[in-house]
Amino acid sequence: MKVLHTFRDVREFAQGSVGLVPTMGYLHEGHLALIDEAAERCETVIVSVFVNPLQFDDATDLDTYPDDLERDVELASCHGADVVFAPSLTEMYPTRQRTTVTVAEVADAMEGEHRRDHFVGVATVVTKLFSGVRPDVAYFGRKDAQQLAVVTTMAAELSMPVHVVGLPTVRESDGLALSSRNTRLTPSERHDALTLSQGLFAAARLFGEGERRSAALEAAVRDVVIGSPGVQLEYVTVADASTAAPIVTVTGPAFLALAARVGSSVRLIDNVFIDASTGTVDTGVKLDGPSILYGGDDPCC
Amino acid sequence: MKVLHTFRDVREFAQGSVGLVPTMGYLHEGHLALIDEAAERCETVIVSVFVNPLQFDDATDLDTYPDDLERDVELASCHGADVVFAPSLTEMYPTRQRTTVTVAEVADAMEGEHRRDHFVGVATVVTKLFSGVRPDVAYFGRKDAQQLAVVTTMAAELSMPVHVVGLPTVRESDGLALSSRNTRLTPSERHDALTLSQGLFAAARLFGEGERRSAALEAAVRDVVIGSPGVQLEYVTVADASTAAPIVTVTGPAFLALAARVGSSVRLIDNVFIDASTGTVDTGVKLDGPSILYGGDDPCC
Repeated sequence: MKVLHTFRDVREFAQGSVGLVPTMGYLHEGHLALIDEAAERCETVIVSVFVNPLQFDDATDLDTYPDDLERDVELASCHGADVVFAPSLTEMYPTRQRTTVTVAEVADAMEGEHRRDHFVGVATVVTKLFSGVRPDVAYFGRKDAQQLAVVTTMAAELSMPVHVVGLPTVRESDGLALSSRNTRLTPSERHDALTLSQGLFAAARLFGEGERRSAALEAAVRDVVIGSPGVQLEYVTVADASTAAPIVTVTGPAFLALAARVGSSVRLIDNVFIDASTGTVDTGVKLDGPSILYGGDDPCC
Repeated sequence: MKVLHTFRDVREFAQGSVGLVPTMGYLHEGHLALIDEAAERCETVIVSVFVNPLQFDDATDLDTYPDDLERDVELASCHGADVVFAPSLTEMYPTRQRTTVTVAEVADAMEGEHRRDHFVGVATVVTKLFSGVRPDVAYFGRKDAQQLAVVTTMAAELSMPVHVVGLPTVRESDGLALSSRNTRLTPSERHDALTLSQGLFAAARLFGEGERRSAALEAAVRDVVIGSPGVQLEYVTVADASTAAPIVTVTGPAFLALAARVGSSVRLIDNVFIDASTGTVDTGVKLDGPSILYGGDDPCC
């Protein structure tokens, strides 16, 4: 396992089919599931670790984002990564960044509405990763459902020969979607945050019973979350899975997504996939035991 | 020599070091100089021919843009190209294009001011060409000086491992800068258009004599062009060669650029490179005889 710091070194190292797992570090089982999948499919597996300032609209969120490269390297290695690519800020942005990538429409609603320029930052840094690393396949979690739609659109419309794969959200055994930001929750905030997944699961059950109206599904989430006064919903929206455009009625693949502030400072997102053309629901996968985010000292497999 | 129509076919064909010459077709000696250089340096030479609607703000200009693929293929082949990549509109834009690439600042002045969204169209299509073809080197003419600065900035800031090379403007023996749009000039308009290069040459002489004030150099151009009432200057600007930012005094590498409408419908651009750090002037290279744009039936070498 190599830890490399420049695009050039990564390109020179990579051989055969290349799988990239872009992360902001502080890996959890959601990331590890992506690495596992990449290791199964690709000859060279590259995990990038870079906290991208361009996609943060909140300086506090950026400053308090957890990091532990040594732990990330150990975890990535255990799960079959060949390279951890940890570029410096200077490698990623050697000059003031004047060039940006914008994905209209797909990036407009939900996160796009609540986090100004967030997706410009995401699309720009992912373009850089795809251009500089040249992967054949790139793996993203479905927890960031709109991000997945943005990146998929961007790669196709920029003629990049990269196959973008989305994998199911990984959850704690009690339903909380894994996120590096969960480490910032106090125990009582963590308890409150459970209403988010519980609300989504309730809506998913309603969908399973035949409900196709977005307003009814969104209301089902609100009804549950309202029970936790410490949780402030920013939005609950049903959106088309490919275009991320809000929809009134579910007729094909879609996701029901939300964002919320939990306690004073932590902002979380979550969603479930629902597909009216097949009637299927994908709420993600649950861990058997506690997440490594809260686990012991030895994160290795 | 192959004519290929898809990115996939081009990537599969390319071997060894790859040189790309992006064009909008209707090749002239300016393009051929780029192809010659690529053929000398690269193992696979790809000439792309695509009239990109995204970079035209003027529908008439787009509709009347000359094209002759058969002739382009013959010329490119004679000069050592291995592939002419002629993508269809559907290959280049399979869906409505929601993803765009913006280069702030470098694209703002001059052409950016007079052709709304022109450089967004250029940066987006060049990103697609670089992403889909994956060249090692890409060749552009210095006649489009600001475009060269935009593309160079974009490739670096998107971490693309592409070396962008700019080569001198090629001119008719009487000084007119080669452009596919020249074919649309009437004989009298063509005569009027000569004042553009004559104005730039006059300013270049002044620079050679030690003048470093942009206003004086710009005035020298205007003094000559004013003699042709059929020529309407849009701008004359001295700009930094790398950032394309207008400058008041020339202290390093720069270009003196202009755009003008000649007659009723043709818009032309031209420039000279001036470098105060070395005192050098580059007005481009002149052809010995008439350009193939006006030449005989057999364009081959």
